[in-house]
Amino acid sequence: MSLTGQQLIGYEYSQQGKQTFTGINPRNNEALSPIFHEATKNEVDLAVHKAHEAFKTYRRLSDKQKAQFLEKIAEEIVEIGDVLLDTASLETALPITRLQGERGRTVGQLQLFANLLKEGSWVNARIDLAQPDRTPLPKPDIRQMEVPLGPVAVFGASNFPLAFSVAGGDTVSALAAGCPVVFKAHPAHPATCELVATAILKAAKACQLPDGVFSMVHGLTHEPGMALVTHPLIQAVGFTGSFRGGKAIYDAAVRRNTPIPVYAEMGSTNPVFILPEALAQKKQNLVSGLTGSITLGVGQFCTNPGVIVTESSSESEAFIELLTSSVESSPSGVMLTAVIKNTYQKGIELLSMNPDVNVLAGSLPHTSDTEVSSYLLETTAQAAIENPALLEEVFGPSSLHVQAQSKEEVLKLAESLQGHLTTTIHGTENDLREYAELIDILTQKVGRLIINGYPTGVEVTHAMTHGGPFPATTDSRSTSVGTNAIYRFVRPVSFQDLPQFLLPEALQDSNPLSIWRMVNGEYKK
Amino acid sequence: MSLTGQQLIGYEYSQQGKQTFTGINPRNNEALSPIFHEATKNEVDLAVHKAHEAFKTYRRLSDKQKAQFLEKIAEEIVEIGDVLLDTASLETALPITRLQGERGRTVGQLQLFANLLKEGSWVNARIDLAQPDRTPLPKPDIRQMEVPLGPVAVFGASNFPLAFSVAGGDTVSALAAGCPVVFKAHPAHPATCELVATAILKAAKACQLPDGVFSMVHGLTHEPGMALVTHPLIQAVGFTGSFRGGKAIYDAAVRRNTPIPVYAEMGSTNPVFILPEALAQKKQNLVSGLTGSITLGVGQFCTNPGVIVTESSSESEAFIELLTSSVESSPSGVMLTAVIKNTYQKGIELLSMNPDVNVLAGSLPHTSDTEVSSYLLETTAQAAIENPALLEEVFGPSSLHVQAQSKEEVLKLAESLQGHLTTTIHGTENDLREYAELIDILTQKVGRLIINGYPTGVEVTHAMTHGGPFPATTDSRSTSVGTNAIYRFVRPVSFQDLPQFLLPEALQDSNPLSIWRMVNGEYKK
Repeated sequence: MSLTGQQLIGYEYSQQGKQTFTGINPRNNEALSPIFHEATKNEVDLAVHKAHEAFKTYRRLSDKQKAQFLEKIAEEIVEIGDVLLDTASLETALPITRLQGERGRTVGQLQLFANLLKEGSWVNARIDLAQPDRTPLPKPDIRQMEVPLGPVAVFGASNFPLAFSVAGGDTVSALAAGCPVVFKAHPAHPATCELVATAILKAAKACQLPDGVFSMVHGLTHEPGMALVTHPLIQAVGFTGSFRGGKAIYDAAVRRNTPIPVYAEMGSTNPVFILPEALAQKKQNLVSGLTGSITLGVGQFCTNPGVIVTESSSESEAFIELLTSSVESSPSGVMLTAVIKNTYQKGIELLSMNPDVNVLAGSLPHTSDTEVSSYLLETTAQAAIENPALLEEVFGPSSLHVQAQSKEEVLKLAESLQGHLTTTIHGTENDLREYAELIDILTQKVGRLIINGYPTGVEVTHAMTHGGPFPATTDSRSTSVGTNAIYRFVRPVSFQDLPQFLLPEALQDSNPLSIWRMVNGEYKK
Repeated sequence: MSLTGQQLIGYEYSQQGKQTFTGINPRNNEALSPIFHEATKNEVDLAVHKAHEAFKTYRRLSDKQKAQFLEKIAEEIVEIGDVLLDTASLETALPITRLQGERGRTVGQLQLFANLLKEGSWVNARIDLAQPDRTPLPKPDIRQMEVPLGPVAVFGASNFPLAFSVAGGDTVSALAAGCPVVFKAHPAHPATCELVATAILKAAKACQLPDGVFSMVHGLTHEPGMALVTHPLIQAVGFTGSFRGGKAIYDAAVRRNTPIPVYAEMGSTNPVFILPEALAQKKQNLVSGLTGSITLGVGQFCTNPGVIVTESSSESEAFIELLTSSVESSPSGVMLTAVIKNTYQKGIELLSMNPDVNVLAGSLPHTSDTEVSSYLLETTAQAAIENPALLEEVFGPSSLHVQAQSKEEVLKLAESLQGHLTTTIHGTENDLREYAELIDILTQKVGRLIINGYPTGVEVTHAMTHGGPFPATTDSRSTSVGTNAIYRFVRPVSFQDLPQFLLPEALQDSNPLSIWRMVNGEYKK
């Protein structure tokens, strides 16, 4: 299929503005075709109004109908064929095999939410039956369930052009909740975005869904995105990207006349703590595991292990020596965009210039104009506690080894941490029992605690929390991966003394959907 | 017991500041004893630091231990005896019988949360078992549950000196979640606050809880409250009160370096729609029901029915005539404070001066310096649609009748509504079937939809939503009444590949707590 470079405003193409841009091949910095048109304020407004209108119909759809839609989207994405992988690879420099996996993840995610809807219990149905004879006043019948918030704005991430983009976790959980989506395409992979958006719209048409249930607008500047976030009819925002981007969106959203929730996943450094006995016992294993996790996808994961903490010892010295040569010899790679590459290099330079930081592996200038090498840097726990900026994320294939002098210093460092998506502890059973306090402290700092594993690789499943305290996200009570992501886009409503014929199916006496419900405080099906 | 007028900072009394104030008897505007000391910034800081320290222990308590604490608080509140009711009545002018009921509600609420903890399934335990043989990569074991956020600041309401105050819904749900509470006492009932705070601290001591699990600070000015909200160690805020107060707290909280969630319940006008057939069939019934709901507790409820919508007809005219004389003849009453009384009178004056508004019942000046009378005012749907300010809350015993010309105008008015805590529809089966669209529109606007009832009277139960879209609250995804209120003060954490001995009991294989859990997507016990 040929690409248009236009906005997809519901079922219509639109090209009102004069501002244009193109995708860039990060492998050679050359412009790609076609030319894309940045959305005007008016186009954003049209898309949101269509979403608002579509919501009137879409919110009343049964869970089964929404499940069909999600399944049809999955089908249509597969239907695009290899051109989707080729396009994404051209725009992002990610290898085809990785994109194959990511497509599988995207399709699997759609299926997971479709299954959640088909099962139906996610709506949290609660029924407290009336007690007409209660004194001094009769107790009314009260029933509660989740209802969708309304049109949602979604901003995709550059580093997952499929799984966290147009048909990614935010879009899918919003659509599953019953919310129309206006998607802001990422300018680093606009062609990939158009392919997937077209697939979603084909699926919407096939399911005879209202015009506006999904729209996509383009933008190289921040303007279309800000117009979206501040539009009075937008009810929530999903975002994956940088702290700067996410925080700017949050700030705009909470200053609206009617503030709205913003679910911004802004990444973190995902500290890895290696405890003494584990360090002594599995040095080589840790070296290969960590090198893999640091350099995977040229280090472009929100869960990249950017900080490694050990306690000073001869074992630790030997380990770091091995890790240094492993990182040193890891292949260079092409990053997603020139901006990301420059930001990575600047971040490394800034850290290197700090008198408390040593560069162990990696070297500037890089092997080519477009490739970057991996870095291992080193500092002390004391320096990191005194200057927490040392622990801020440098997005890319680098990690900072933090040397602590004692267990006490490890605990102090842990206490000083800000919010992170994940933290990892490597330890033997003895280690873990001895460092129980560390585990307790770290649980307060993260969305996910990993034992003897690596933070990269986020399972899309029921028990996943891909989130964490600020500044990892703007809402620690939520996750952007896994089925719980749906709860970001709903709110509870109680129905008091409604006759059966007015009640949603999920709350009717006969339980026609056969879902789990809490009846007078007890779970029943 | 004698009152001190001091801050209760954990288990210690404190009186560092020079600023003082007293409670005022609203029945005669005379100062009450003792003299209360406004908290200094330093005292607020001390209380928060103690809460932060206490959290280290309190968050690790079992649900059963927390349940014992809540039950002990309930016991200690009852133990205070009649002096609690007398003190509250003196400070608020609320009658003893009402306060007896409110004490029952407060104690019942503590018991409800204790039962929730004893049952234990509230933690949303989810387990996705490992698949070591999965290709291309093994699937790790992932388990998720809710953990407490940390120290919570709670602001009580003036209109519920027991049930939404020191040991009210916000405090109880935060303590149940595992969060220490720093309570900002309401200056309109400081003596009542000290009595209840002392009961909580007695219970905490009896349960050998850490110093700082509960503190209470006083303040007549906004300063101690703002110091609390902006304190870096405070992790969430619960508030019940005016829009102005709640919005100021929200604005301060989202502008912090680390933004925190604010759950402000700011009231609403709770529109009541009376459909034609019901209006014709149960005029007298509606008149007495509405008069009761409007004037209950001198109209000082967040769920007071401040707007009544009917369609123009001879039946509607007859109904309004009856309602007018009913409201006119309802007794005058003393409001909670002179400020609330003056704000009520100003609100009525402002509405009365609007050329689109007629005063049907009620008259200025009032029967006495301290009492107010009830009001019924009237406007047209067209005027209300053009000027939504007409529908803003006037806190007190008044209601605005909105006359619509047609069903279409009723729908248009409903569409124009902002967020409310509740809405009520009176209708026969025929009415309700004919106005299905109205019900659908209104569901989008509120936290609770009531059929053929009255909005005052909020059941404390599992299925209650006491919340709603902005400006009714600052977070429509939450409730401040009912067991779901606990979820405001927790966030999910995932545990990946933890050995059994490190897992919280709720997530261990053997399910030692016998709670409901989602295992590989299925609910099990």
